[in-house]
Amino acid sequence: MEHTRTGVVRTAISRADPAHVAALSAFGVATVHEAMGRVGLMRPYLRPVYPRARLCGTAVTVLLQPGDNWMLHVAAEQIREGDVVVAACTTESEDGFFGELLATSFRARGGQGLVIDGGVRDVADLERMDFPVFARAVNARGTVKATLGSVNVPVVCANALVDPGDVVVADGDGVVVVPRERAAEVAEAAARREAAEEGKRARFRGGELGLDMYGMRGPLAELGLRYEE
Amino acid sequence: MEHTRTGVVRTAISRADPAHVAALSAFGVATVHEAMGRVGLMRPYLRPVYPRARLCGTAVTVLLQPGDNWMLHVAAEQIREGDVVVAACTTESEDGFFGELLATSFRARGGQGLVIDGGVRDVADLERMDFPVFARAVNARGTVKATLGSVNVPVVCANALVDPGDVVVADGDGVVVVPRERAAEVAEAAARREAAEEGKRARFRGGELGLDMYGMRGPLAELGLRYEE
Amino acid sequence: MEHTRTGVVRTAISRADPAHVAALSAFGVATVHEAMGRVGLMRPYLRPVYPRARLCGTAVTVLLQPGDNWMLHVAAEQIREGDVVVAACTTESEDGFFGELLATSFRARGGQGLVIDGGVRDVADLERMDFPVFARAVNARGTVKATLGSVNVPVVCANALVDPGDVVVADGDGVVVVPRERAAEVAEAAARREAAEEGKRARFRGGELGLDMYGMRGPLAELGLRYEE
Amino acid sequence: MEHTRTGVVRTAISRADPAHVAALSAFGVATVHEAMGRVGLMRPYLRPVYPRARLCGTAVTVLLQPGDNWMLHVAAEQIREGDVVVAACTTESEDGFFGELLATSFRARGGQGLVIDGGVRDVADLERMDFPVFARAVNARGTVKATLGSVNVPVVCANALVDPGDVVVADGDGVVVVPRERAAEVAEAAARREAAEEGKRARFRGGELGLDMYGMRGPLAELGLRYEE
Amino acid sequence: MEHTRTGVVRTAISRADPAHVAALSAFGVATVHEAMGRVGLMRPYLRPVYPRARLCGTAVTVLLQPGDNWMLHVAAEQIREGDVVVAACTTESEDGFFGELLATSFRARGGQGLVIDGGVRDVADLERMDFPVFARAVNARGTVKATLGSVNVPVVCANALVDPGDVVVADGDGVVVVPRERAAEVAEAAARREAAEEGKRARFRGGELGLDMYGMRGPLAELGLRYEE
Amino acid sequence: MEHTRTGVVRTAISRADPAHVAALSAFGVATVHEAMGRVGLMRPYLRPVYPRARLCGTAVTVLLQPGDNWMLHVAAEQIREGDVVVAACTTESEDGFFGELLATSFRARGGQGLVIDGGVRDVADLERMDFPVFARAVNARGTVKATLGSVNVPVVCANALVDPGDVVVADGDGVVVVPRERAAEVAEAAARREAAEEGKRARFRGGELGLDMYGMRGPLAELGLRYEE
Repeated sequence: MEHTRTGVVRTAISRADPAHVAALSAFGVATVHEAMGRVGLMRPYLRPVYPRARLCGTAVTVLLQPGDNWMLHVAAEQIREGDVVVAACTTESEDGFFGELLATSFRARGGQGLVIDGGVRDVADLERMDFPVFARAVNARGTVKATLGSVNVPVVCANALVDPGDVVVADGDGVVVVPRERAAEVAEAAARREAAEEGKRARFRGGELGLDMYGMRGPLAELGLRYEE
Repeated sequence: MEHTRTGVVRTAISRADPAHVAALSAFGVATVHEAMGRVGLMRPYLRPVYPRARLCGTAVTVLLQPGDNWMLHVAAEQIREGDVVVAACTTESEDGFFGELLATSFRARGGQGLVIDGGVRDVADLERMDFPVFARAVNARGTVKATLGSVNVPVVCANALVDPGDVVVADGDGVVVVPRERAAEVAEAAARREAAEEGKRARFRGGELGLDMYGMRGPLAELGLRYEE
Repeated sequence: MEHTRTGVVRTAISRADPAHVAALSAFGVATVHEAMGRVGLMRPYLRPVYPRARLCGTAVTVLLQPGDNWMLHVAAEQIREGDVVVAACTTESEDGFFGELLATSFRARGGQGLVIDGGVRDVADLERMDFPVFARAVNARGTVKATLGSVNVPVVCANALVDPGDVVVADGDGVVVVPRERAAEVAEAAARREAAEEGKRARFRGGELGLDMYGMRGPLAELGLRYEE
Repeated sequence: MEHTRTGVVRTAISRADPAHVAALSAFGVATVHEAMGRVGLMRPYLRPVYPRARLCGTAVTVLLQPGDNWMLHVAAEQIREGDVVVAACTTESEDGFFGELLATSFRARGGQGLVIDGGVRDVADLERMDFPVFARAVNARGTVKATLGSVNVPVVCANALVDPGDVVVADGDGVVVVPRERAAEVAEAAARREAAEEGKRARFRGGELGLDMYGMRGPLAELGLRYEE
Repeated sequence: MEHTRTGVVRTAISRADPAHVAALSAFGVATVHEAMGRVGLMRPYLRPVYPRARLCGTAVTVLLQPGDNWMLHVAAEQIREGDVVVAACTTESEDGFFGELLATSFRARGGQGLVIDGGVRDVADLERMDFPVFARAVNARGTVKATLGSVNVPVVCANALVDPGDVVVADGDGVVVVPRERAAEVAEAAARREAAEEGKRARFRGGELGLDMYGMRGPLAELGLRYEE
Repeated sequence: MEHTRTGVVRTAISRADPAHVAALSAFGVATVHEAMGRVGLMRPYLRPVYPRARLCGTAVTVLLQPGDNWMLHVAAEQIREGDVVVAACTTESEDGFFGELLATSFRARGGQGLVIDGGVRDVADLERMDFPVFARAVNARGTVKATLGSVNVPVVCANALVDPGDVVVADGDGVVVVPRERAAEVAEAAARREAAEEGKRARFRGGELGLDMYGMRGPLAELGLRYEE
């Protein structure tokens, strides 16, 4: 397994198939996470910086040093249409690594958004641009450009492993990573799940109980659940 | 005093009088909390999962196990028109215990919303449905159905004691619990308080100072407050 | 240097020149903070209590005691048109020190908003009034009036030093303090910075990279950044 | 059920039987909590203020106001030999409510220790006196004496309900509350549990696996656990 | 008032009189804080990195940049016998700015310890050397040397203002700053306070109640405290 | 790259060479982390549960489900002499997954300690046994055995990627992971680093400044550092 290194930019990465990315983009994060078998979710402290932000794209990964956003400029060059930048940091740092100018640059290169285990600023501008960002903090404090990190190496971002080219889906429920090679399978599983839920939704709406729909009464009684007046 | 137990569902609970619930629903949480004598407030880490969510209803209480939402399905059967589900957890757990399907089920049974010392998901759907939820976290991670908790036993939720049938009021300022037998009295005190504030509001608007309106100058001087240039 | 004292109200303070305040009000917090040389930023746990709140004004400072809002009433008398109340606390306290009635009073006196290292309540009313408040918490719990603090002494609020009369700027990115005597200079530096950014923005929009615009390729190579396939 | 009130001191409370308290004092918190059926545990943010602090006694309950320790003086008069003071607070407050002088007073009255959902100070003295305290913070900041709380009413402390006279057990693993009327039963269950563990300990020490001792291999296989090279 | 600047080292600072520092060193932080009139306390998240660490000395102040400890080396040159280094940071940063080598250097220059609003490492070595450090975190992650801060300018450290030459006292209860010009007065007030407490301690030990010693029964009754069976 | 899966136990893993593990065990975490090039450090919220705990061994990895310690029993069977169990969790969970009985079992199998992104209990017993544990919380609350996780798959623990067989080093400064194939190289780099530090230590002890030892005066002056009286 390849490990995180600093001082490296990989220029040739394999991205998930755009058709699979498009398929995944139809689903919410909770559905994708279930379809994955409940792995790949980032820690829930990453939050959208404006309401209704959502994104789905292929990961250009970045390893940042604390209080230093140099590698985001290096990453900009690696962005292709449909990419999402996923920025991890070697330590916990909530400075404002990213703002409206970099968002303008990322967008011009085809970038669809940013997921960052750090802080960002210019949040009013980001909302106005509708450039979706998921971050751990909002912070007006800027950063320096002094120390090397890496671009397009495997990173651990908010406790989830991300390889360059993986699919990243984010919405108000959180951020989930789908490994490149599982994108097709997960999109299909998500579609099946959503279809199944549609039927359940109608039954719930009609007043049917989960107790009956899922056959829970027997197992509950077996474990000793008592009903009392 | 009855204590928390696991493995029990109480089916016959006494709810606060609907007229008193309706009376309380006219007031904000801050006003109700003051009218109560400043007790009964849940810890402020419970937040609405979408802007302007608010609720007022009678509590169906749930005691959850960490990462396990089985008892929410059991609770659905106990919901009557006008109820609010109040879900405590035996330990701190921020998984997504609740989402859009359960909200559909709760609403079909007459449920008015949810207060939960845990996480929830599908927040975009909850906002679209306008199903008010007050939670400690948003988390796409789902839960299992493996261990018994209880329904309609007294619970401690976000540091507040809730008996089944108590009135729960929640808005952007927080969540407060009014014991069933105090509902009428508290609604009246809240009305008196609001009437008194109306007069004060007009005087403040006219530029009058709290220093004069509340007769504070004397006590401040007595304690030694000094005015200097 | 003057130090924080309790039991004192200073009535004659020097405020920043209104023209400089007006000049500063045109800029966002991130820009002002950069123009200051990256000092004067409050800790990022202070957040607007409703979306798009922003303020710019001269500080009337308050030193609060925990769970006690008496000094906010004392401060109301010291407010002049264009002031912002900046309330520090002698200890960490997240009770609801401030609500809609005090906002009405502050506004009637010319107050432009509140920055408080504590909690506030009536947030729906504050949004309706569009009275901007930046706070560390929302909390329905009210406060008492029992212990003396101070008004218009130097305070440390959310880790930033604030002198009475300093300019305070706050928006979705945070809260920054500009010392009274630096207001003119900082406004000019902010204007220069914004002008410079306008040119960069256009170039970024056209697809130019920060790597080239800022001449970063040389320094990165010198530090040993390697590009690999 | 009796609810929390302010402004009241109850002087006649029923304490758990001293023999049952003595029996419970032989067990650690984890064992008692299991013997209770996994209820009654306070939130784990309460920590001993010095290593190896532990206590077991009957609760004199206190409801504090934030930053105000007046009720601890009122409580001192209600302490009898073998009591532990359990202090809840109407809101989150980490000021130093308690120090060496009050510890001296409590001990002189027969007090065995303190559990407090707030801060304390003089921790070096408390360790020297070996007066066990479990608190949410250490804070040199003192408190005022201005507002009424209550003594010996039911309180919710760190999310656990405590009635006056209940047994409180605390050690390095946390704090658990045993309802007065369950003290005997829980002590017996704890003894049985400890006896059972003694046998298991020996088997574990001999290298036997929990997989075999608890018969887990079957259920794991049934759920589909796969062993791979 | 002088404000925080970056890029400056002041070499000629006025330190508190060594006799007053010696006098203050006899008292604990809680006592000094009370003797100050309850101002000057740092936020309680600063904790000793080993048990029983304590220090008292004159402040050499440092303003650090996040993840960058260069200014600690600059500060070392400014240390004289009896000094304590007080390191603030322009933003929240928990990297390990300081370890055993710098402690060796500081000690060789006469340094008595460190107070830092950041992280430190080598804590086992620091304990072995008995070099007292009060920090917000322990973190093995080291820092870079890339960006200028300042030495011996006024800083805000953990929400307290510190001027170079002020007296800093720290023990297990926290960290308090005594302005240089108040050192004598505060030492005297602390001595008076401790003398007064000695008498109270004896009376508490004899079983006398604070209720009687402080004459609290009248005020409590006036506010309506009710005693019930 | 292999990704995290649930429901799998890998029985044949490659462990780092014992000689390299022994070599690494001579160094502290801060030194190893530097020798690695400043990668591989776990988040600093993992702390030793008793003072002076330290460990060094080869990782048996575990993926836990929240509030469920079943997989620790499964892992016990995979432990060989010199292993350390590294337990990640699919979500944040601070229940007490591990206590004295499991420690007895792990030790009997050759286990050298535990690193867990969760809670543990029986901390007094763990200290008595001197079984080193690094955890995110202490919590008396026990867990269930209901849901499958995995053993010896790659896991992300406290934001660090751990492969089975990697070397884990932990002490009071934190926890660091050395990839199996880098163990020899890192041990050598650590030795070189420590040798170099020995010389510096002596010079620091003699009063030499880092400013001179590291040649910092030039670069500082170039960046514009000003010395003022």
